Amino acid sequence: MSHFAERLNHIAPFHVMELLARAKALQADGHDVIHMEIGEPDFTTPATIVEAGIAALQSGKTGYSPALGIPELREAISQFYKDKFGVNVPARRIVVTAGASGALMLALGALVSSGSEVLLTDPGYPCNRHFVRTLEGTPINIPVGPDSKYQLTVEDIAQYWTDKTVAALVASPANPTGTVLSQAEIQSLHQACAHKGGTLIVDEIYQGLTYGFEPQTALAISDDLFVINSFSKYFQMTGWRLGWMVVPDAYLDAVTRLAQNLFIAPPTPAQYAALAAFTPTTIEILESRRHIFAERKAALKPALLDIGFQIHADPQGAFYFYADCQHIAEDSYALAKNALEKAYVAITPGIDFGSHLASQHIRIAYTAETNILLAAAERLQKLIKQG
Amino acid sequence: MSHFAERLNHIAPFHVMELLARAKALQADGHDVIHMEIGEPDFTTPATIVEAGIAALQSGKTGYSPALGIPELREAISQFYKDKFGVNVPARRIVVTAGASGALMLALGALVSSGSEVLLTDPGYPCNRHFVRTLEGTPINIPVGPDSKYQLTVEDIAQYWTDKTVAALVASPANPTGTVLSQAEIQSLHQACAHKGGTLIVDEIYQGLTYGFEPQTALAISDDLFVINSFSKYFQMTGWRLGWMVVPDAYLDAVTRLAQNLFIAPPTPAQYAALAAFTPTTIEILESRRHIFAERKAALKPALLDIGFQIHADPQGAFYFYADCQHIAEDSYALAKNALEKAYVAITPGIDFGSHLASQHIRIAYTAETNILLAAAERLQKLIKQG
Repeated sequence: MSHFAERLNHIAPFHVMELLARAKALQADGHDVIHMEIGEPDFTTPATIVEAGIAALQSGKTGYSPALGIPELREAISQFYKDKFGVNVPARRIVVTAGASGALMLALGALVSSGSEVLLTDPGYPCNRHFVRTLEGTPINIPVGPDSKYQLTVEDIAQYWTDKTVAALVASPANPTGTVLSQAEIQSLHQACAHKGGTLIVDEIYQGLTYGFEPQTALAISDDLFVINSFSKYFQMTGWRLGWMVVPDAYLDAVTRLAQNLFIAPPTPAQYAALAAFTPTTIEILESRRHIFAERKAALKPALLDIGFQIHADPQGAFYFYADCQHIAEDSYALAKNALEKAYVAITPGIDFGSHLASQHIRIAYTAETNILLAAAERLQKLIKQG
Repeated sequence: MSHFAERLNHIAPFHVMELLARAKALQADGHDVIHMEIGEPDFTTPATIVEAGIAALQSGKTGYSPALGIPELREAISQFYKDKFGVNVPARRIVVTAGASGALMLALGALVSSGSEVLLTDPGYPCNRHFVRTLEGTPINIPVGPDSKYQLTVEDIAQYWTDKTVAALVASPANPTGTVLSQAEIQSLHQACAHKGGTLIVDEIYQGLTYGFEPQTALAISDDLFVINSFSKYFQMTGWRLGWMVVPDAYLDAVTRLAQNLFIAPPTPAQYAALAAFTPTTIEILESRRHIFAERKAALKPALLDIGFQIHADPQGAFYFYADCQHIAEDSYALAKNALEKAYVAITPGIDFGSHLASQHIRIAYTAETNILLAAAERLQKLIKQG
């Protein structure tokens, strides 16, 4: 006899991992697999950041940092908000975390009691609902579609908020859809949550990766919300596991206690490396990569539409298309398997992002060079034609 | 109006952090503070490990690893169990984690439902009960004392196990007491838990740091238990945030899903660095540092007894004395404050490890050179005499 936690009945695997394992097996057999399935930039970390990490290791920065991060990095992030967005965010409210994953655990850990409800989008980043469930809360997965750019609306908040609801979590730019909330929309959502006596959490981990316009921050609207951010996506530091969070003053003590106990501290070498993330040289590298993402997006979109994918809301950020494939395939999971087995193209089935119309959607990441992306589109075109 | 999670009423801060902040302020004012309060070796990471980390960064290992860790490291840990302990632990059961903190979250996340009880020692590592509470379980803090070397016994399991209990967690060597369970004791505890239909979790994060005899592993006794380990203590990689866990086969799927969703993956540069942790050159460095710890322990113990501290169970491992100070001070928290303010010696009050007789105990870490430790003892001696 063994005890398994009840939460395990609700915690789904990443289905794409099965596909990834199969993709690697195919590669080992000599097949040329094109990877468009993982939520990770194909660029390695900028050399300036890597060099700062190496210098930190060489100078013996291998011990624990303070639980909320090294003061220099919290100051640098504060300065970043001032320089880039003209927003004052005092360093004391900035909590450096073990990836955005760590930030989500801390924010939700401070808000969610047993039975608390948190409003989320379906489709959305799947870990969000699993964090809520791990903390014995109830994720409320609200079906969203093209009308709202796959984002929560004030009407959703009016409809789904109950006396058990403690927070709503939105992402801008969002995963898997890449859509962006305007400042006016975030303000409305914030007001709606505040009116209900609850908290708005804004996931800005794809901040910096917007195309055709400059990114913004919800912190320009209010201090009374949680903002989650990360060094993984725009700063391309995925493997270092470093993120941050901006916390309302009222929650600082709670988040500190949770951080001390659940994490001890975020990784130290990564924090010293990240000090180089905001220098002009690094930003120049990152901005040129952002332009590359924009070019890829512009090149791949018409190719996908040609094949018969539908993209109902143009992704203005991140590096994904969330494509409706109902005119191409019966089921997006079968399509993903087929694409891998027959065309050696790895893409992510909708089921990894929720259940609402999941079987007719697929996520395609433009995390390869443009010519490779177009080659993948050609392979998919051929596959679909063969039916 | 704001929502605060109910768990926050049960999650204590690390009191030593206040003292640490004060210690740093005193240092900034020019005082020579001796640090014996933090659970961290005073050695930086061995150069061989640092160099492996640097090489990994130079070769672009900056992306996500698999959720359970890079296969090479899981294999290296498997080999370590074979070489050092003669125990076969297949790599598939080895889960690399974001510190032992990550391992505790995954193990307890897989076992604990809302209302589940977990048997723990008081005194013990404080985060254990906070992990259980974060997952909405109920930590059962069992008062333990010198009779059982501050460890759980089969009698405790008989007495405290209820139909809600899912697991017992023991540590060997333990924090804060440094005591070690014999293999026979672990076997009895394992049998007692199995008899109740529950799981034994053995925290071996101080494995390797035993004095006068060679370390062992609970995995020699059974495959049907969770073993938590870490690269922080013996391998002196605290700031890298890397640990591991050995999981019973039945729990592998559950732990995988939790790891994917709660952590994505452990830090990549740290994993490549840790590949160098098991080489003969590194082990030679680590063993020589282990001898240094043993010498410090031998030198400091009589000095503490001289002052009037009582050490009821000789610590056979880790790098702590858990000392009874009832004949020296009314209250250990006041003693810690006094020691810092008047003698510039930082030590950790018992309250950080539980509530059972906490106010008459103090933890003293021998994480400084012997002459400094003895200087600290002299300062404490003087302080107490002045009383």
